[in-house]
Amino acid sequence: MRVLITGGGGFLGTKLAAALAKKRELNGHELTHVVQSDIFEPTPVEAPYKTTGIALDVSDKDAVNAALAEPFDVIFHLAAIVSGQAELEFDLGLNINLFGSLNLFEAARQGGNKPVFVYTSSCAAYGGEWGDEITDFTFLNPQTSYGAQKAAGELLLTDYSRKGFLDGRGLRLPSVTVRPGKPNAAASSFMSSIFREPLQGESANCPVGEDYRVWNSAPRTVVANLVHAAEVPEDNWGMNRCLAIPGQSVRVGDMVQAMTNVAGSNAAGLITWNEDKFIQKICEGWPQDMKTDKAIRLGFHQDKGFEDNILWFLEDDIQR
Amino acid sequence: MRVLITGGGGFLGTKLAAALAKKRELNGHELTHVVQSDIFEPTPVEAPYKTTGIALDVSDKDAVNAALAEPFDVIFHLAAIVSGQAELEFDLGLNINLFGSLNLFEAARQGGNKPVFVYTSSCAAYGGEWGDEITDFTFLNPQTSYGAQKAAGELLLTDYSRKGFLDGRGLRLPSVTVRPGKPNAAASSFMSSIFREPLQGESANCPVGEDYRVWNSAPRTVVANLVHAAEVPEDNWGMNRCLAIPGQSVRVGDMVQAMTNVAGSNAAGLITWNEDKFIQKICEGWPQDMKTDKAIRLGFHQDKGFEDNILWFLEDDIQR
Repeated sequence: MRVLITGGGGFLGTKLAAALAKKRELNGHELTHVVQSDIFEPTPVEAPYKTTGIALDVSDKDAVNAALAEPFDVIFHLAAIVSGQAELEFDLGLNINLFGSLNLFEAARQGGNKPVFVYTSSCAAYGGEWGDEITDFTFLNPQTSYGAQKAAGELLLTDYSRKGFLDGRGLRLPSVTVRPGKPNAAASSFMSSIFREPLQGESANCPVGEDYRVWNSAPRTVVANLVHAAEVPEDNWGMNRCLAIPGQSVRVGDMVQAMTNVAGSNAAGLITWNEDKFIQKICEGWPQDMKTDKAIRLGFHQDKGFEDNILWFLEDDIQR
Repeated sequence: MRVLITGGGGFLGTKLAAALAKKRELNGHELTHVVQSDIFEPTPVEAPYKTTGIALDVSDKDAVNAALAEPFDVIFHLAAIVSGQAELEFDLGLNINLFGSLNLFEAARQGGNKPVFVYTSSCAAYGGEWGDEITDFTFLNPQTSYGAQKAAGELLLTDYSRKGFLDGRGLRLPSVTVRPGKPNAAASSFMSSIFREPLQGESANCPVGEDYRVWNSAPRTVVANLVHAAEVPEDNWGMNRCLAIPGQSVRVGDMVQAMTNVAGSNAAGLITWNEDKFIQKICEGWPQDMKTDKAIRLGFHQDKGFEDNILWFLEDDIQR
């Protein structure tokens, strides 16, 4: 079974590749070759099967067609221009997030083998005008270009699936917290950095108040859910191939308390609390809680408390 | 004030051009030039200002840029590949309905004058999985490629508007009934032909049963709503630039009775009732009723009964 991971050099793509290396199969089919693509050629994760790293700009249609000329059985599409950057560089975001996804859908269709296509959308697809609560039936009214581009891709993924061109499964990810590495251009970057940096002895700024609730999920849970998405039987998806996966809604103040509970009180002292109106405006447009009934029905994994997010960061990712 | 109508050679575009010719202004600004574009050069409607007909394939990016090189103040985008055809010719539908709309959004943005952009979506954007009823907050889960392409365009229209690139207003039109002319490749074509053909002395087939409810609006109402869309103050649109405009939910049997009430009983006898599974499957995916609170709040017009649809067809469009 051949697998492609776009954004395969990013933290989530790397963790996913590592999870596959350990699992060795998907739906009972042995993995034979996993390709990690990214804008720069990534070093593939070691695995008991063939692995390759390739440079691929998903907005380059010819390059995508070439990369997918030998069809893949499963495609995990994680490559994206994140929210803050897509807001500042509109054309780049549109080219990668929308046209890049379409290039992959189309190349996957041309392969003729109806591959499983796991598409990553975002809770940023919600926003704007909605009713009383966010459920599986809530209108997507994103208030960022990133969210709009992701949501447009969702519609096309479901349509390509309905037509039988591919077997799509789209997940609206919560904010993935605590993510390793460096701060990035996502408006949600602080949701990791206010834990990661203090736990590594550095200061970090929180641009929102303690009462802001973050709809989040730990990297371990999200990776498990990406794998699960590829394994849910096609018939169980129903008429909508995209859904919000479970997350947990936690106050920033309670997240900080969880860090103190797990790692002691020193870290919290390294957080500064300077408001950032640009970040706040984006974040306030995002849902802070939602009901994910369909995903729970389909067996997606749920986080059990923010202490786990901290603990798993200490176990998996801390750099000292 | 310069106005562009794409799909300007179609029945709705022609009626809209005629309505503008009579009104002579939009939002108090005198019309100076109305361009009707279509895939074949249409004959422009006579008007007390400059009128032009041009051939324009909206999927041709260079041609769109050339046609919009001199900016328009208001763009009505009606050009589309309809539901039945987009289902059979997937690539054509995608190219015209999605990429064509994007070409127009982008050319409108490049003009730098933030034009009013009236975008026509469809109640076919609804479907699939939804909750108890369809409201302004109901998830769009289209079950046709046409609906998916229109819904994806909606997301981008709202985003282009949020960014200030244009001033978008997207309307999900009900089935426009009774439309003049010939049957077309829309799966909803029968919703007009079972009235139009019999009223003109010809037979027509109804592929669905009497109890199927059609979410419909008369051409006069829809044209009035397209004009209204261009005149609602920008601030009133809120964070979502797209909405379902009002319609009426009427059983096919009651529509036929309305025809008999207005035009006598001969016409109904010319309807045949042979089921068509392909058409039924598409139609059953469409909403048969919905709540359009936001549109009503914004002053959009509402139909008052299907007798009007029949009467106005006899007054405006019948060919004998």
